[in-house]
Amino acid sequence: MSIEDVLSRIDSDLPAATERLLELLRIPSISTDPAYKADCDRAADWLVADLQSMGIDASKRATPGHPMVVGHLGDGGPHLLFYGHYDVQPVDPLNLWDRDPFDPEVQDTPKGKVIRGRGSSDDKGQLMTFVEALRAWKEVKGDWPCRITFFLEGEEESGSPSLVPFMKENAEELKTDVALICDTGLFESKTPAIVTMLRGLLGEELTVKAASKDLHSGMYGGIAMNPIRALSKVIAGLHDETGRVTIPGFYDGVPELPDELEAQWQGLAFNHEAFLSDVGLAIPAGEQDRTPLEMIWSRPTCEVNGIWGGYTGDGFKTVLPSMAHAKISFRLVGSQDPLAIRENFRTMVEDALPDDCEVTFHGHGASGASGADISGPMFEQARQALSEEWNVPAAYIGCGGSIPIAGHFQQILGTEPMLIGFGKDDDALHSPNEKYDMESFHKGIRSWARILDALT
Amino acid sequence: MSIEDVLSRIDSDLPAATERLLELLRIPSISTDPAYKADCDRAADWLVADLQSMGIDASKRATPGHPMVVGHLGDGGPHLLFYGHYDVQPVDPLNLWDRDPFDPEVQDTPKGKVIRGRGSSDDKGQLMTFVEALRAWKEVKGDWPCRITFFLEGEEESGSPSLVPFMKENAEELKTDVALICDTGLFESKTPAIVTMLRGLLGEELTVKAASKDLHSGMYGGIAMNPIRALSKVIAGLHDETGRVTIPGFYDGVPELPDELEAQWQGLAFNHEAFLSDVGLAIPAGEQDRTPLEMIWSRPTCEVNGIWGGYTGDGFKTVLPSMAHAKISFRLVGSQDPLAIRENFRTMVEDALPDDCEVTFHGHGASGASGADISGPMFEQARQALSEEWNVPAAYIGCGGSIPIAGHFQQILGTEPMLIGFGKDDDALHSPNEKYDMESFHKGIRSWARILDALT
Repeated sequence: MSIEDVLSRIDSDLPAATERLLELLRIPSISTDPAYKADCDRAADWLVADLQSMGIDASKRATPGHPMVVGHLGDGGPHLLFYGHYDVQPVDPLNLWDRDPFDPEVQDTPKGKVIRGRGSSDDKGQLMTFVEALRAWKEVKGDWPCRITFFLEGEEESGSPSLVPFMKENAEELKTDVALICDTGLFESKTPAIVTMLRGLLGEELTVKAASKDLHSGMYGGIAMNPIRALSKVIAGLHDETGRVTIPGFYDGVPELPDELEAQWQGLAFNHEAFLSDVGLAIPAGEQDRTPLEMIWSRPTCEVNGIWGGYTGDGFKTVLPSMAHAKISFRLVGSQDPLAIRENFRTMVEDALPDDCEVTFHGHGASGASGADISGPMFEQARQALSEEWNVPAAYIGCGGSIPIAGHFQQILGTEPMLIGFGKDDDALHSPNEKYDMESFHKGIRSWARILDALT
Repeated sequence: MSIEDVLSRIDSDLPAATERLLELLRIPSISTDPAYKADCDRAADWLVADLQSMGIDASKRATPGHPMVVGHLGDGGPHLLFYGHYDVQPVDPLNLWDRDPFDPEVQDTPKGKVIRGRGSSDDKGQLMTFVEALRAWKEVKGDWPCRITFFLEGEEESGSPSLVPFMKENAEELKTDVALICDTGLFESKTPAIVTMLRGLLGEELTVKAASKDLHSGMYGGIAMNPIRALSKVIAGLHDETGRVTIPGFYDGVPELPDELEAQWQGLAFNHEAFLSDVGLAIPAGEQDRTPLEMIWSRPTCEVNGIWGGYTGDGFKTVLPSMAHAKISFRLVGSQDPLAIRENFRTMVEDALPDDCEVTFHGHGASGASGADISGPMFEQARQALSEEWNVPAAYIGCGGSIPIAGHFQQILGTEPMLIGFGKDDDALHSPNEKYDMESFHKGIRSWARILDALT
């Protein structure tokens, strides 16, 4: 039986594969919210059962947080690892969803069929592309392509607190020739891509406290320090007029783009006007002396992800609040040191606040950037397989998002990460009405079958 | 029967008067939240019934919002009006209350007995001081002191949208010789006071919108405009380094303090260190070239009362939000024009935002400052009565809060407002664990009896 038979089997099994994905999407496995702990567990159980049904030696492995799903199959050939995550982002603001985020369905749209629901693209749909490719392979060929280890986590959307300890404790079991990671996208929705450059992520939550209790702004307004005003000033000072981040030492370890990569990226002819206009914007808002692709792939950023303080309900309340809060994250590149930046950020905030304000910090993960070494033959084999499936040369690209696991594979296991995914720019990751194109799902499954064929 | 008999009656009736107040406090008449509409109505009914039980011709009068309570009694002598409000502030953050805000009780504290509950000081407890004084008067003397009109509203905490139309439609009925308003406090918790200078209030809510939907900060961070960053910059720019508000024309119509008032205020020996340290602060945060009393009584302010945007729940979500929101209010003095300031504020915000941001505004009330003409004999008669009850000379003072009704009485009815109240600085108005001292309630009732005696 040839690879063509496997691809045919994938085509004919697509309706059943879609039903399986919808089943997994119905489980609200929001890892960041403790109220959904049992649901995360249920999603892990579902995956264990599905892998076992294929004859894979899979099990749920406890951690202090949500469980890992680990599975082993096959022998001989290269030893591959497949990584994905079964947890999903929170769904607020819920009122902006057109349907229940956990009642997924296949919808016809002007751009084609989509699978709509939280986690459809990030990352349950992507995760299942690999599972379905392997299922079809086994059904058609009666055997596995090579030795493969599954490693699925349930804490990716909440900073992966259990990941590093688990990898260290189970290093021998998880060490493989390459780690296939399916949590990225196509390039501009058309070109398959292998991500070779990933930004790191540093998360900080801060609370600025002024008065010991909420005050009446009539009685205290003017004389009492307003913590929202103080926090706003701190946030306004995080960037200078040219869009550069002002934290001392922030750009230490930020490399200039190598000439050859710069040339390749220019060849991609990235249409930043279209990229921005898709979401109602027009003007690149980053460092003014950088290209749009640099802004999203190779330059570090500082973004406020949330802010709150005082009265935020309907109507008006003339309160002078006691506290104001913000969640701020940094995307890191090159050899920027997350812990040094955290320290410099905190010192800068403390120095910037007026004497009548106190600040407390809560860290939310700190991972450096990573890049893959693409010199081995496997990267080129996978790139060829992708190019065949999509009928267009696959690209090596950067990625603005942070997938800390890529760095962990390198540093803890010495395993090179290969990031291949099929998401599109308009998938609404982390947003209301998340979707995954049926084309992404279908051709994603087919892509993995071709890659498995090329690597073995 | 002399005034001493009325005061004795007040003393012996205090337990029953307290029970009546607790009954009124149990009604959660939060005017700003539509969910409590029926409760506001219930509070109005309770007051009508209580006034009727004293033989007062009282009724509930419909408005497009919450109803007014109007009552008439007596004849001859000066015609007095009494104003108070039966609505209360929202109770959030609820978790900072030591008990259910609407299950009030009398508590023993190191500083004496207090009545704890939402509205105890603002304004149900204050409102009932006048009602109880009149009840005792009638019971002891068998007749009313003079002609009195009650005028109680239920929208004071939500900008009083129905007040001006109602006053205009019923001007003949509400026009009196003086309007007694009980919604202010003692001076520094010890000295009775008549407020003769009140700041105005302008409320603005703004929404800054950047992208058409929430974005993933990994994919769009750096290149896409962040509306929280844009809003923070606007807020940070509302004050200069010296604490002055930067809106063009903001200080037009702000008068310098007359020399004689400046001298009187210096005589009050206001202890701003104690005023601030009571709430955990130390440094006057207003215009650096002004005295603390000016900051809270006679200078205009700009305060952010609420801010929100992006992910504000537990954990972390690397969202780049589509929108950010703030509620901002201005305290106005002298002849500052609220509508001109609103316009200049909006223009300044629009000009300050980057091109990729849109802003929408929602106005929440706009009232200028007001001052009372204290040259008539009634003010001095009332001041003497207060001095006798509290055994210390009563003061004419300013007030940082805005009680727009004072200006409305002057402008619509030609009636001079006389603002007398018994709240204390630590009453926690608009905050968790609001209270009203039993001393304020008791001596407040006695004060009104003495004032009625002095004015008639």
